[in-house]
Amino acid sequence: MASSTPEQNRSPELRRDPLNNRWVVFSPARAKRPSDFKSKSPQNPSSNSNSSCPFCIGNEHDCAPEIFRFPSDPQYDWKIRVIENLYPALSRAVEKDGYPSCGTSCQGYSDRVVKGCGFHDVVIETPVHSVQLSDLEPREVGEVLLAYKKRIEQIKECEFIKYVQVFKNHGASAGASMSHSHSQILALPVIPPTVSARLCSTKEYFDQTGNCCLCEVQPKDLLVDEAKYFVSIVPSAAMFPFEIWIIPRDHSSHFHDIDSEKAIDLGGLLKLMLRKLAVQLNNPPFNFMIQTSPLQVTDSQLAYTHWYLQIVPQLSGVGGFEIGSGCYINPVFPEDAAKVLREVNISNSM
Amino acid sequence: MASSTPEQNRSPELRRDPLNNRWVVFSPARAKRPSDFKSKSPQNPSSNSNSSCPFCIGNEHDCAPEIFRFPSDPQYDWKIRVIENLYPALSRAVEKDGYPSCGTSCQGYSDRVVKGCGFHDVVIETPVHSVQLSDLEPREVGEVLLAYKKRIEQIKECEFIKYVQVFKNHGASAGASMSHSHSQILALPVIPPTVSARLCSTKEYFDQTGNCCLCEVQPKDLLVDEAKYFVSIVPSAAMFPFEIWIIPRDHSSHFHDIDSEKAIDLGGLLKLMLRKLAVQLNNPPFNFMIQTSPLQVTDSQLAYTHWYLQIVPQLSGVGGFEIGSGCYINPVFPEDAAKVLREVNISNSM
Repeated sequence: MASSTPEQNRSPELRRDPLNNRWVVFSPARAKRPSDFKSKSPQNPSSNSNSSCPFCIGNEHDCAPEIFRFPSDPQYDWKIRVIENLYPALSRAVEKDGYPSCGTSCQGYSDRVVKGCGFHDVVIETPVHSVQLSDLEPREVGEVLLAYKKRIEQIKECEFIKYVQVFKNHGASAGASMSHSHSQILALPVIPPTVSARLCSTKEYFDQTGNCCLCEVQPKDLLVDEAKYFVSIVPSAAMFPFEIWIIPRDHSSHFHDIDSEKAIDLGGLLKLMLRKLAVQLNNPPFNFMIQTSPLQVTDSQLAYTHWYLQIVPQLSGVGGFEIGSGCYINPVFPEDAAKVLREVNISNSM
Repeated sequence: MASSTPEQNRSPELRRDPLNNRWVVFSPARAKRPSDFKSKSPQNPSSNSNSSCPFCIGNEHDCAPEIFRFPSDPQYDWKIRVIENLYPALSRAVEKDGYPSCGTSCQGYSDRVVKGCGFHDVVIETPVHSVQLSDLEPREVGEVLLAYKKRIEQIKECEFIKYVQVFKNHGASAGASMSHSHSQILALPVIPPTVSARLCSTKEYFDQTGNCCLCEVQPKDLLVDEAKYFVSIVPSAAMFPFEIWIIPRDHSSHFHDIDSEKAIDLGGLLKLMLRKLAVQLNNPPFNFMIQTSPLQVTDSQLAYTHWYLQIVPQLSGVGGFEIGSGCYINPVFPEDAAKVLREVNISNSM
């Protein structure tokens, strides 16, 4: 057995994430060295083309209806398509001229039961089966982010939608049922639990300090990388080993207020983080989620809500302790994960 | 394709669990028929004996120290052993005469960081490798429950412990690293997130109605089975397909107040539920968790806190939507799951 490392001599510690008000148990004694973590999940099957994949260019007729594509001019091949999910979790509300509208049929029944009306869309990030999001140029990743923005701006015309969750599942064990690179947009008629909890705790932080919790973050030894408008850190109470947050430097409540310049900047940093995770952790399955604010916020809520992008590599499953308590056990201290990720050597081919 | 069932013609619906204040999306269109759900997870390897298994009788020397065994008289073979976890998530506090005590070294540093002191114990439920919890007689399952009770009563002497999470992981994809039947007890120096959230929402319910939320449950078409002191239901806003709650009929805040008669009654109902899930869902991996109250509660909290046992078969993974939003998508309506489980035919060999 290898001699113990400084990380393994650390005592366990519980940390509370002030943003989400969640306790995490850091327990390095259960871990291998932080630099030894590798994914053992089977890779996505991948090939240059897949005649049976409905997301591949040429197979558009096998998909649910398209909402928009980029570029929109039909004389060019598409680079990104936003389509309806063929198996939507929610019943689609009516759309008129591409913009959703909703009748009284989408109202809730009570404070405990709400009709499952909403939108569940898919963003096909590339026409080519073998290309992954992190293979795209920063500008192209930025275009995917701008597709999210455009779709959210359409959806927010629909008054009964309270929150839009953008997320990506990569790899079967991270929940992806299709290997062709895509992400999803789920527009909900309620404010989901993590968002309500975050509103509560960031308000409490603001009431106590007069500041936005994420504006106050001092990356220091949690820093992974920096871009012009964004920083990437391992959060101080990361739920998962090698979890990364990309945070806008300037205060901003809603992801969908991003502009093109910032989207390209974020695209570059997101690409870099995904490549670093792939190199360091052996191309793990992963999820990313845009953690934004409810569509309707009050002026006072604008002061303490700050969006971020959360990236979670899937290295271990969840058991009864996590389901029961909502506490997660993370074997890697965030400072150690950040150091490992800071030092990953990415070739200059980006 | 089979013709659609009444379940599949249902519209999606969002339901809020008033106990835990969580929204769940019920989306039957994404599902097969409720009766067609089967686990595809590999089974636990199992044999009559396993010379390399430290939990098997005769291999006690390969385990971390024993805390107690049942029966305690060394002239009999043990039936249940409670031992320390060899890879504890938390640093063990001192024990004196079998009862934990704690010096100042286990205090927290701040409201955001707490030293990781606590207990992480393992309950070996049987000396025989091939025996599962649901193979035991109701009385024997009751003895396992009484072992939990005894250990919690020891741990609660330790003032800095705020909450004790009892849980069982069965099957590798439910988080079990050992196939020999066992459960775990994790005693925490903080109140974990789900418990804090439950305290909040049950207080709100009590303030509005004057009643305990779980005392008010009307099982009706959510009922699975009944015993003398307990009922088992599929909760109205179940997060997972075929999730089951076993609830004491009489108001009770703490699991560890259970007596021997009730433990045997619960043992029989727990056994029945595990057998029904195994028959209906093809022996799925599962977790169960005892959802109890913090060790120290105020008199007013006693009025609205009510413990229960939550059973979750692991049929599908969690993706970016669930991690991001805290909302779960459940393809099976609770009323349909309860009907299927009510009707499972268990042979009379119990």
